[in-house]
Amino acid sequence: MNKIVDYLSEQHDRYEQELIDILRIPSISGDPSHTEDMHIMADTLMHEMSKIGMNKAQVIETDGHPVVYSEWLNAPGKPTLLIYGHYDVQPVDPIDLWSSPPFEPVIKGDKIFARGSADDKGQIYIHLKAIEAWLAIHGSLPVNVKLIFEGEEEVGSPNLKGFIKDYEKMLTADYVVISDTPMFREGYPGITYGLRGLAYMQINLRGTNTDLHSGSFGGLVKNPINALVEILAQMKDDQGRIRIPGFYDDVLPVSDAEHDKLSKLPFDAKDFADSIGAPALYGESGYDDLERLWARPTLDINGIWGGFQGEGAKTVIPAEAHAKVSMRLVANQDPDDISNKFISYIKSLVPESMEADIEAMHGGFGYVTDLNNSGLQAGVKALEKAFGKEVDFLREGGSIPIVKVFADTFQAPVLLMGYGLPDQNAHAPNENFSLYNFHKGIESIVYFFDEIGKLTA
Amino acid sequence: MNKIVDYLSEQHDRYEQELIDILRIPSISGDPSHTEDMHIMADTLMHEMSKIGMNKAQVIETDGHPVVYSEWLNAPGKPTLLIYGHYDVQPVDPIDLWSSPPFEPVIKGDKIFARGSADDKGQIYIHLKAIEAWLAIHGSLPVNVKLIFEGEEEVGSPNLKGFIKDYEKMLTADYVVISDTPMFREGYPGITYGLRGLAYMQINLRGTNTDLHSGSFGGLVKNPINALVEILAQMKDDQGRIRIPGFYDDVLPVSDAEHDKLSKLPFDAKDFADSIGAPALYGESGYDDLERLWARPTLDINGIWGGFQGEGAKTVIPAEAHAKVSMRLVANQDPDDISNKFISYIKSLVPESMEADIEAMHGGFGYVTDLNNSGLQAGVKALEKAFGKEVDFLREGGSIPIVKVFADTFQAPVLLMGYGLPDQNAHAPNENFSLYNFHKGIESIVYFFDEIGKLTA
Repeated sequence: MNKIVDYLSEQHDRYEQELIDILRIPSISGDPSHTEDMHIMADTLMHEMSKIGMNKAQVIETDGHPVVYSEWLNAPGKPTLLIYGHYDVQPVDPIDLWSSPPFEPVIKGDKIFARGSADDKGQIYIHLKAIEAWLAIHGSLPVNVKLIFEGEEEVGSPNLKGFIKDYEKMLTADYVVISDTPMFREGYPGITYGLRGLAYMQINLRGTNTDLHSGSFGGLVKNPINALVEILAQMKDDQGRIRIPGFYDDVLPVSDAEHDKLSKLPFDAKDFADSIGAPALYGESGYDDLERLWARPTLDINGIWGGFQGEGAKTVIPAEAHAKVSMRLVANQDPDDISNKFISYIKSLVPESMEADIEAMHGGFGYVTDLNNSGLQAGVKALEKAFGKEVDFLREGGSIPIVKVFADTFQAPVLLMGYGLPDQNAHAPNENFSLYNFHKGIESIVYFFDEIGKLTA
Repeated sequence: MNKIVDYLSEQHDRYEQELIDILRIPSISGDPSHTEDMHIMADTLMHEMSKIGMNKAQVIETDGHPVVYSEWLNAPGKPTLLIYGHYDVQPVDPIDLWSSPPFEPVIKGDKIFARGSADDKGQIYIHLKAIEAWLAIHGSLPVNVKLIFEGEEEVGSPNLKGFIKDYEKMLTADYVVISDTPMFREGYPGITYGLRGLAYMQINLRGTNTDLHSGSFGGLVKNPINALVEILAQMKDDQGRIRIPGFYDDVLPVSDAEHDKLSKLPFDAKDFADSIGAPALYGESGYDDLERLWARPTLDINGIWGGFQGEGAKTVIPAEAHAKVSMRLVANQDPDDISNKFISYIKSLVPESMEADIEAMHGGFGYVTDLNNSGLQAGVKALEKAFGKEVDFLREGGSIPIVKVFADTFQAPVLLMGYGLPDQNAHAPNENFSLYNFHKGIESIVYFFDEIGKLTA
């Protein structure tokens, strides 16, 4: 292992230069004028995979941007890793707010500034350089490795689910590794073991056939906006708990071990509130802030509308009122089950003077990896060895729908070993990536291959 | 009196022809291309006033369309009536839905179809023809009469309040009479003795500086839409009573006598609900339908908005949420007092995690005439004598702001003796006016002058 670490030291500057080279390619998946750049980027990755010694490397076309796939499977009896990442990047607008051009990488202090530096080119390069180092020194890897880098993550991965289905056998693995999440704080490695799911609903209430004059009809008809706010006000109790019957039935509770880990993370509620301009934070009683954010389901009204919204005053009783409501779910809540419970509960609250149409728009499962999983433990050891700090155990409040697809398709744990930082501006001007994390990241993946190689397939 | 009634019979056809003539003038106040027609209409009325024998008739310019004023004040010791009406009409769009051209009056059965027939030219002509008949037969009126017909009622009477102030002495009267309301049902005369007032508010709630992602922040911040619905749901209790402290303090209760009168009016809740496509009606417990509609204050959310309103799903926690809320008031609620109570109550409900800005947009007093008022009783006698039916005692759910201005300026009761019908399409295509009501209306005003003349000033 020392030899590989020495090799990494020697290659330090070249690795940064290669990162700069791929960051120059403007692979914006959402902009049709960059279609050619998408192919240049995919080809560049394929050549890189061949160059570092992967056995097979290919660009596979899809209905959208291509997938780059590569494998090295010469470690019989050892586990197989499927490493997923994406080579496409976000658009750059508002371009005026960039301190330097988004595709002309600039290093300032420890950080490299460029679109895609953190999200996700810098992070996929960590894996390529770790593989390069192993193969350069030992001529082999201690595990079997499959790489899948897609080009449509920033536009919602419209073809990836189908790709995984079509190539299920080729992609099958014991562990899935994704490096596309931020660490919790600078200098401390993090591993993300949980994601929330989603159930997104729309409520349409109708009171009458047409809008009515509030003078001529007010007092005698139920106003659908009044009805809507009365219904929606019954979604949570005064402790912030969601009142939909059976809503919490399948929620996987936070274990004591997990609670201990989460409570060790530094979190300053005042700073957090200040950063978003909130007078104060608010959440469900009985839970710590990070549990509320990561490990507990939520219910938010994402949109509401009805009646007159213009300047001035219009005395209308509208015919209809509408709301979009979504619930962030956690393991093991089923979005279909939650949608059905939501619909039943809302229907029970609709007054007889009103007609309701409630629609389940879309949903996805939450996800959590067992903290005792041996693959996750291998990741923890590797990260702690490289960074010299205890790992932060993290969850995400949002959803990464493809995680659940990988987990279910291959019955494999998904390890989210991310090297970004909270202030990386991933989808904003001045995106940046820590070069400290880049180099330590490569080192950690070198150790990770070693640790995983100690397990049996 | 018989002589006048005989005279009316003789003039029956001429009166209809004269009504047709003024209905041909397209006096649309809201359309600048009809400015010339406004002057033609005003001049026509002025000449008519002179012709029938009023002592003085003049067109008085304002900053908008002119006011036509006339008086006959040769009944010393007798009360003075100020009769208000308007000679302007609504626009005619959608013109395609008219069965005959709006300014080419057509008589079908008992009804004359034309823009302005009911609202309000037919009704002001009732007064002119009653005056004509009295002066033709007796050479004098039994009361003093002042006529004020404005040309801006359909555009909100922007200059009338100022006009009343400028000409307060000229206009002063013991009773104000307005014929611009509908009767409750065909064949039955009605007198409207109450109107509701208004307090119109806007609530702006702010939770954070910018919109947030519901995955990254959901569970830890109060969503301003959730907060808004929770606040607004506390505006009424489960009996439909408004929960603002002190809201009902000044409400003039419905007397037993009034309750008896209102309960005699035929009202079919099922038919009413069907006519507006409502699954059922809804109102405050403990009150009859017409009391809810006319004599009880209301609270309606006229508009609500926040977050994402488009197609599909966007998982946003918006920075802000907004609502427009108006309360229909009744005598003797003060709109400023109610606005202040509203603001205090809302502020008491705003969570500490939220900033609220609550704005009183505009308001107006409700109005009620004492049912025992001798002027109103004179009107009742006259209407019953002409129509041969008991008077329906009516209130209006809406507001006519100028009523309160007249009442307060002259300390005079305002008698709303209207001859329209509920299905008159006042602001819609195919506006129409009952010729039965036109002729009976003239007769009733003839009697009304007589009855009022029996009172002392």
